[in-house]
Amino acid sequence: MEITLTAPLDMHLHLREGAMLAQVAPLSARDFAGGLIMPNLVPPVTTPERLRTYKEEIRQAIAPHTFTPYMTLFFTPHYTYDFLAQIRDEILAIKLYPAGVTTNSQEGVASFDLDLLAPTLEAMSQLQIPLCVHGETNGFVLDREAQFLPIYKELAQAFPDLTIVMEHITTHEAVQTLLEHENLHATITLHHLFTTLDDLAGGLLRPHLFCKPIPKRPEDRQALRELAFSAHERVMFGSDSAPHPRSKKEAPGCAAGVFTAPLALPALVQLFEEANALEALQAFVSDNARRIYRIDPPAKQVRLVKEPWQVPESYGDVVPFLAGTTLSWRVDAL
Amino acid sequence: MEITLTAPLDMHLHLREGAMLAQVAPLSARDFAGGLIMPNLVPPVTTPERLRTYKEEIRQAIAPHTFTPYMTLFFTPHYTYDFLAQIRDEILAIKLYPAGVTTNSQEGVASFDLDLLAPTLEAMSQLQIPLCVHGETNGFVLDREAQFLPIYKELAQAFPDLTIVMEHITTHEAVQTLLEHENLHATITLHHLFTTLDDLAGGLLRPHLFCKPIPKRPEDRQALRELAFSAHERVMFGSDSAPHPRSKKEAPGCAAGVFTAPLALPALVQLFEEANALEALQAFVSDNARRIYRIDPPAKQVRLVKEPWQVPESYGDVVPFLAGTTLSWRVDAL
Repeated sequence: MEITLTAPLDMHLHLREGAMLAQVAPLSARDFAGGLIMPNLVPPVTTPERLRTYKEEIRQAIAPHTFTPYMTLFFTPHYTYDFLAQIRDEILAIKLYPAGVTTNSQEGVASFDLDLLAPTLEAMSQLQIPLCVHGETNGFVLDREAQFLPIYKELAQAFPDLTIVMEHITTHEAVQTLLEHENLHATITLHHLFTTLDDLAGGLLRPHLFCKPIPKRPEDRQALRELAFSAHERVMFGSDSAPHPRSKKEAPGCAAGVFTAPLALPALVQLFEEANALEALQAFVSDNARRIYRIDPPAKQVRLVKEPWQVPESYGDVVPFLAGTTLSWRVDAL
Repeated sequence: MEITLTAPLDMHLHLREGAMLAQVAPLSARDFAGGLIMPNLVPPVTTPERLRTYKEEIRQAIAPHTFTPYMTLFFTPHYTYDFLAQIRDEILAIKLYPAGVTTNSQEGVASFDLDLLAPTLEAMSQLQIPLCVHGETNGFVLDREAQFLPIYKELAQAFPDLTIVMEHITTHEAVQTLLEHENLHATITLHHLFTTLDDLAGGLLRPHLFCKPIPKRPEDRQALRELAFSAHERVMFGSDSAPHPRSKKEAPGCAAGVFTAPLALPALVQLFEEANALEALQAFVSDNARRIYRIDPPAKQVRLVKEPWQVPESYGDVVPFLAGTTLSWRVDAL
């Protein structure tokens, strides 16, 4: 048994820089036709120079694979219409982080006073640049996403022509908000489709499953699964694959991030197959993103075959999601 | 400024065995007049021989400190009245673990069919042996304690003369259940008075704060604090201090347990002082336990002085709670 995906896309991807980039980028580039590259580096990607240098570094790392790195800027309210008009063709979206909510987000937005943000958001709307949002407050860890939902609603109503993407949604409340506004879209990660807080902390504590937003309750995961398995037209796959070296995970202070890129497609196929939802997978991992972002990625065909495949215990010094477990599908070498 | 506590007691204490016991037992014995020693060793303490050997090992480790190790048996429904009558003078309580809910609880109770448990529980009631309970189900990690509350209620009603101790309560629902039944009592740990899930997983993930039950919401912690600060007559301090070597904490699978014993008293004094509740501390850390358990511990006076004290980064290879932070009180060397 086999399945072929056309131009699978990972619409939320952390490739890092330097040695880590060189290690992980080929793994995404092998399986996907493109990915939306997150800009939360240190310092963040906020200038054309940094953007171009970073894109070139990615290009070198992914060769010879066919893979389009869709670049993003790190949102600041200082971006003017003229600035954005000039850089429009080099980016696919702009990613907004509230200050301090996740890895390298210190430079993010400290206030959601729409008067302050409006000039940049209106320019983005006019230029058809989507806004991707890490939608969490600084509140209690279980409530952060739900507390942010009124901001999503306010943004959706204030900027009706702006394409807004709720990144890595984790709660049934977020699903409800998504459904209520036509210009809201969402990505869902692999690990939030698989895990709940029970997997992270219900037995032994599992630092390699630790991410932001933290996984929530079984009913939240169920709501995400239903959305993904139905391939709702405004939902996309975005792995949020975020590698950290083992020394940053098995530590007194464990960094947030789950590394899923090299096993994402086999795990998705297995999950969708078990849910009798395989017919929704092409839309979830590619077609919806192509329509939402108006992109035309390389027509790369990725074939998966139903053969047992054991996820490696590590890739270099990065421990992947589902390390050591055997999946029922593998990507067929092209 | 100073404060003297008379016969402080730690009514929920893990001393381990062997080298770990030798390392941690003196730290409890230095600051406390006695402690209730948990029996979840491998294999668990279920026989008189194991009990006596373990108690002797503890005695050797704590010398020359004045400290009474109050021993417990690991509950099994096989204990008969005659067995318990014979061992009555050697134990203070029996600890019941549901199977598989925490460290070394595999041998615990798999079914709460009261018909199965009744003979042993009735014997305990007649012999005035308190029942200490790790009150969690195997359900979703945030719900386990609340899901167990109906079992507490059932036990309290079925065995009205049995002294039942809800160990390490963590939720406002548990506080409510405690208040509703006169024969229910509770211990509260130091770390559940200090932390919420935010401290464990809201920033970086903190394995040294990981314990079972996991810390819950701010409103849950507030309910515990109000109970402790009022020194409700059926509530006692029980640290649940549970040392693990660093290699078991900073690991792909981190063991549950927070090591608080050597800093528990200074941290409690600081917390109660900040809440203007110092007058309740003697009851919380000693008097209530003496009355509930009908014990007469050594009349040890433990003096604390208000001087900055930095919690050590580690005790041997065990990282304590609040490692490296400076408390405003320290235990005065006797």
